[in-house]
Amino acid sequence: MYVNRKHRTCLELGMLSELRKFPGNVSYSRIIQEIKSLNNDRKVHGILVQLPLPEHLNHKKVLETVDPKKDVDGLHPYNHGKNLLGKDCFRPATPRGIMTLLERTKTRLEGKHAVVIGRSNIVGKPIAVMLLNSDCTVTICHSKTRNLPSLCRQADILVAAVGKPHFIKANMVKKGAIVIDVGINRLKDGKITGDVDFENVRKKASWITPVPKGVGPMTIASLMENTVKACKEIEWPKNSD
Amino acid sequence: MYVNRKHRTCLELGMLSELRKFPGNVSYSRIIQEIKSLNNDRKVHGILVQLPLPEHLNHKKVLETVDPKKDVDGLHPYNHGKNLLGKDCFRPATPRGIMTLLERTKTRLEGKHAVVIGRSNIVGKPIAVMLLNSDCTVTICHSKTRNLPSLCRQADILVAAVGKPHFIKANMVKKGAIVIDVGINRLKDGKITGDVDFENVRKKASWITPVPKGVGPMTIASLMENTVKACKEIEWPKNSD
Repeated sequence: MYVNRKHRTCLELGMLSELRKFPGNVSYSRIIQEIKSLNNDRKVHGILVQLPLPEHLNHKKVLETVDPKKDVDGLHPYNHGKNLLGKDCFRPATPRGIMTLLERTKTRLEGKHAVVIGRSNIVGKPIAVMLLNSDCTVTICHSKTRNLPSLCRQADILVAAVGKPHFIKANMVKKGAIVIDVGINRLKDGKITGDVDFENVRKKASWITPVPKGVGPMTIASLMENTVKACKEIEWPKNSD
Repeated sequence: MYVNRKHRTCLELGMLSELRKFPGNVSYSRIIQEIKSLNNDRKVHGILVQLPLPEHLNHKKVLETVDPKKDVDGLHPYNHGKNLLGKDCFRPATPRGIMTLLERTKTRLEGKHAVVIGRSNIVGKPIAVMLLNSDCTVTICHSKTRNLPSLCRQADILVAAVGKPHFIKANMVKKGAIVIDVGINRLKDGKITGDVDFENVRKKASWITPVPKGVGPMTIASLMENTVKACKEIEWPKNSD
């Protein structure tokens, strides 16, 4: 679903975008070969491996094969490390989109207590790191966390990346908090909903993102920003063609 | 001070260790050249750049020059990223030593609330990451944090890496907490002391590390572990000499 939207957005923006699809039983070596060829292709500035990959492919090794200079998804360990260190790099698109949303609230982040629920490599960990580097006090919660509601109630900024519909209730939210809903859950009736009980939580929050049409479009936009950055910044070695 | 102790410990363990000293005004290019030559030297398994570097040297670029496979200090962004992702890598020595201390208490870390004070690249950030990957709920505090005492009192595991003598008082510690003191502060009388008011906090803590002779020696030991790991695991490209 998402990969087509990314592809379409590239084309709408006038970027060249190629979608390379493989059968579900594609071999590891075939995928690696494909990525290496894209790494060496001067016409290509950004490479995105759409996750999740089939189980027989080692997704960590696949992601590490992407040249960090073309890693517009920001998932290479080198970019994760630079993000942790607060250095210029490709940051994962969803957290980057969240930071843009927070900027637009014009809230001063310094000293705010941000509570992140979820510790995935594509959302929870990198957004925690980015909030920390923006001078927030950061708490990272996850499936093993005890007393989650009481931790959530401490949050000036609450980021929910849990994957459970309506998981965050109004009694878990401090009055005036900023609530960012990263969840994308499909209900039985086919509707998409977030991790937050939006109708009730919105009455307490100072800012809140809806699902759909909240963080999702920001992810796409941030990916495009990363791709433009890649195009601007890439330096080819002088001695190769 | 420390660099000599590391060097001496290597020699005591029967490792080859060379200390390369440069004048304070050494050029950036000279340092880079030195590191590159050590990267290519098959007799060398580990390279450690002793920090802090003089201001005119870009310490981030210097650290990035070290081959990640020889980065026994675990400070290359690639290793920081792998640490964040919970993958096998060289982890910074001080946090690694702290994790070993925690293991030896035989405390089950899952679900414990760890509060880390300090967000440096060599201690605060990587220990927070390692505690998170060990299933702790993790809060990272720093100079911009508000209500620090109340956050500290939530900690089952409190890691102080602040750099202020006796900063952590007994009223900031929950009864039964594990307290790890990473501070190394020199008092006017020349004595070394930690960040924790040891005599008073020890009465409340279930475990506590002293300063000196707590985390410090574990840092050295962990560095040696990393160096042995580097020696065991390094793979040289087949086509070079």
